[in-house]
Formats: sequence, C-alpha cells, structure tokens
Amino acid sequence: MTLHVGMDIGGTKTDAVVVDAEGRVLHRHVLPSGHGDDAVVAKAVAAVAHVCEAAGIAPSEAASIGVGIPGLVLDGVVSHAQNLGITRLDLASALEKAWGVRPVVDNDVNAGAVGAWVAADGGLRSIAYLNLGTGLAAGLVLDGKVWRGARGAAGEIGHVSVDPHGPLGPDDLPGGLETYASGSGIALQAGGEAATDVLARADSDPDAAAIRDGLFYGVATAVRLLVLTLDVEEVILGGGLTRMGEPLLEGARRVIRGWERTSRVLASVDLTARIRVLDPETPVAALGAAMRGAGRG
Amino acid sequence: MTLHVGMDIGGTKTDAVVVDAEGRVLHRHVLPSGHGDDAVVAKAVAAVAHVCEAAGIAPSEAASIGVGIPGLVLDGVVSHAQNLGITRLDLASALEKAWGVRPVVDNDVNAGAVGAWVAADGGLRSIAYLNLGTGLAAGLVLDGKVWRGARGAAGEIGHVSVDPHGPLGPDDLPGGLETYASGSGIALQAGGEAATDVLARADSDPDAAAIRDGLFYGVATAVRLLVLTLDVEEVILGGGLTRMGEPLLEGARRVIRGWERTSRVLASVDLTARIRVLDPETPVAALGAAMRGAGRG
Repeated sequence: MTLHVGMDIGGTKTDAVVVDAEGRVLHRHVLPSGHGDDAVVAKAVAAVAHVCEAAGIAPSEAASIGVGIPGLVLDGVVSHAQNLGITRLDLASALEKAWGVRPVVDNDVNAGAVGAWVAADGGLRSIAYLNLGTGLAAGLVLDGKVWRGARGAAGEIGHVSVDPHGPLGPDDLPGGLETYASGSGIALQAGGEAATDVLARADSDPDAAAIRDGLFYGVATAVRLLVLTLDVEEVILGGGLTRMGEPLLEGARRVIRGWERTSRVLASVDLTARIRVLDPETPVAALGAAMRGAGRG
Repeated sequence: MTLHVGMDIGGTKTDAVVVDAEGRVLHRHVLPSGHGDDAVVAKAVAAVAHVCEAAGIAPSEAASIGVGIPGLVLDGVVSHAQNLGITRLDLASALEKAWGVRPVVDNDVNAGAVGAWVAADGGLRSIAYLNLGTGLAAGLVLDGKVWRGARGAAGEIGHVSVDPHGPLGPDDLPGGLETYASGSGIALQAGGEAATDVLARADSDPDAAAIRDGLFYGVATAVRLLVLTLDVEEVILGGGLTRMGEPLLEGARRVIRGWERTSRVLASVDLTARIRVLDPETPVAALGAAMRGAGRG
C-alpha cells in the first residue's frame, strides 16, 4: 500500500499522520511543538518517527512527506513564523538531513485548504477553507489547485474591514474579520481574557454575548465575502473556534437568513447551504500536507 | 492579417470593434442598443456590419466573433439582462443565423476583465477588473483564465457589505459596495439624482461631498478586499465612474494611505501601487469579447 506522511507544525502542537493514497488517516501522533529553529526541527523529526514506527515504515520509505507550517513559505524556507520563534529557517533542507528525503513544505492554511477539500469531498471543484484559529485566514482551492496569488498573500481576509466603526484590531484598524472571528480577536475585545472563557459565559453576560454576536456576524460576513468574490462551491470552517460546534454554525446562519429576507441576490446564492464545519478532530492541515506531498492541490 | 470581431452589448450602447491578434483596436463602431430580443439582435447585427465594412471584410471572414452582454450567460443563452429587456434569449444562435458563424458569447464583466487584462499588459498572471458602472462588479482573470466560480457568480462583490450602518441598497441591506461606488448606488443615496450631477457639486455641497467620500471609501475597500482575498497583481478600474479620472484614484489612495499608517500588513501588500485606471475611452468589454472569441482568457 502506498503511504504518505503529513505533518502540521502549529504554534502549540506538531501533528503527524500517515495516510493512504485516498487520504484516509491510518496513524496519527501529536507532540507539543518546539520553540526556535532547532527545537521545532527536533519535535518534527520525533513526531514523524513515532507515526512512521506505528505504520511500520521508515520515513524514507513513505511515498512522500509533506509539511505545513505558519508563516511565509518559499522553496521550503519558512519566514516570519513568530509563534514558533522562527525568523528564517530552511526547514525542507533541515528535515531532508534527518530523513534522506526532501519534504514538500507549504503554508499551514494552504495545507489546511487541501486537507479540508480532501476531507469534505475530493469531488468539489472549488472550496474556501476558513480557518477560525488564533488568527483568521482562508485557504483557497480553485479548480483542484491551491490559489496562492501573486505574492502568497491570497486568503488574508482577516485584514478586510467589514465595519468602519467596529472593534479595533492590534493594528488600530476597526472591524477586521480577524478581530470579530478569531481567538486573538475575541481576546483583544475582552481585554485579554481567553476566547473560550468569553464564549463560555456569553449566555449570562451581555458583554460576552455581544462579542459572540460579533463572532457570528464575522463568520457570516466572511462566508458572504468568499462566495460573492469567488463563488466557491463550499466554505469549509475549521480551526479552534469550530469546537463551539452547532451553535457557531446556527449563529452564522441566523445572520445570513436575516440578509436573505430582503436580498434576492443573497437568497439566490444560497450561502447557508454552502457552509460546512469539519469534525474538529480531523487533522486537516496534516492531512492536507500529506496530500500536497502526494501531488494533490 | 488575422482579424477578430468583438462586441459589447450594453444597457445603452452596442460597441463593436475589429482587432488584430495582439488586441490592437483597428476599427470601432458604436450604436444605441436596442431594447427587447429582436431590437437587441438587430442593433448588434448592424454594429458588426458597419465595423466589418470599415475593415473591408464580411463578418464571416473574421477569424472569430466574440460578444459580451449583461446577465447570466450559459452556452450562448442570455438570461436576466433586465436593462436590455431580455428575459431569456439564445443570442449565439440568433447571431449565427445572421452571420453564418457562431459567436462566443460571455458576460460583459468577464469580457471586460479579459479586455482590461489585455489592455493593461497581457503579461500579468492575474488581475481583477473592477467595473464601476451603473452597478459594481469585478471580473477575475486568474492564471490567464477567467474565473467564473461554481455558478457564474464570481466577482459579485457589489453585494458585499462593508458597513452594517452604511447607506441602504435597493435590497434594504446596508453598506453594500455597490451602494457606495456605482452610478445606481450614488443615485439611490441622492434621492434619484444622477451620479454625475451629485459628483459635480461635491466641492461645494457637504451632502454630495459625503457621498463622494463614500465612493472613495468603497473603491478603496473593494481594492483591499480583492487583493487580500486573491492577491491579484493588479486591480484595474473601469466603467463610467472612472471618467472622474485622477481625483477618483487619488481619493481612493488617500483612504488606503490612512490604513497603511497603522497596519503593517496593509502597508506590505502595497495596495496603492496595484490600482490602475484604464483610459475610459478603451472599449474594454468589446476588446475582451474579441479576445475571448480568439481563445484568450
């Protein structure tokens, strides 16, 4: 059986999987991520060693190895992955030294988009993967290929403002989608309190409820923006905030239904039917990295 | 010399051109558009007859004929072109009867995107054509191909809201980009007065000045949205409102420079350098239709 290794090096976890050619996850191993160049590489090597051992292969015996990581990625070199303490690291070469084979390294949101596309239904022609994590960004798969844009900045919709009088982001600009609908944005609105805590008391606290309403508004608006700009078949939600589950989806849909009551155009594009939430346990970026290594997306 | 015929059937004018293989416009003939199926076809046939006569060829001798028209276009059939009085018309077949050759028919904004791409610099890999006309919509050329989306709705960013407390559109939704930055939207804000009249007195009338500021905000925000979502190399502005010229570009750039003062991300994507305004005399949709007929885009 052809086996592919995929890994997502996140700000907190390094998530490694072994998948088959169809993208079924056969083994998974998660470790806390390292911080700084050497520790990041060491943890990555360890996570892949564990998951390959479970699969009964050496890393060099995998048909391919793909890696997703935050930051700007060009020819295997990672820049500006601040949460990992990386300024500039030739990750592909460092890992090639350990394994004897060179991995395909990609930005984690792009890897996530491919993972979401494969996990949702590999038959879709185009999707946007809306990652609601510490930050907010979208990954785009158009015609079965990741669309990166002219300078790798495609999908950075967290920096689109949808309210000139909305809450200020870390850059002092109002109403950014990331400020409404990400872990860091919610914490910023709540004076530093963790997003999970803010959302947990939203049923009983009007201030927290207003922030939660902003989250629903931000998600609904991001979906509206992605569908009206790109007309992707589906917008697939992932990232930590989706652990909220059905209430998140229902909250966003309620906002959309409000728009549809008066707008024929918005009703015709059928936004509510095009939103999907992945099972939060899906190792979406690691799966996507594996599929990228296998030449998909 | 290989000659291609292109035509844009607009709400008011039917604009026909003969171009060479590189997209240079050799002849152009403009007629008022007809209203209703038969009159639209008759005017289209007449416009092409005139421009072909000037070029010394019969329509059937052109290497290709391409047509742009508002509304939804599928396999040469046009639906919902309200300004032309068309509910559903098999335009490709009707024109094929007149010419003996079948034209390539496409939506006018998609044709405009190809025209803008060719007119700007055929070497760009990706552009968005932002049409600021009676309505507001974008046409997308990604990797040298028009991106239409799953249902042909890509680029309908006029229906993205960028202010929940902004002016109401015809659908009663607030802050749509089309309400800020289109002829119909400005007229709606001004109680029915024509956009050109509103903008003409903006230097002396505070209400008109506020609407003009909204136009600059809308254009700047549309550019921000298109670049952050797609990271296209350039956003090319066209349509009637661009007759305003340099003040429009400068107004939008002023808004963008305000954002760049505090946001590192927005400064890094360099929005002001990516905006271009076409010469308003460029027959952008007719040229694009001709190039589409010739197999470009």
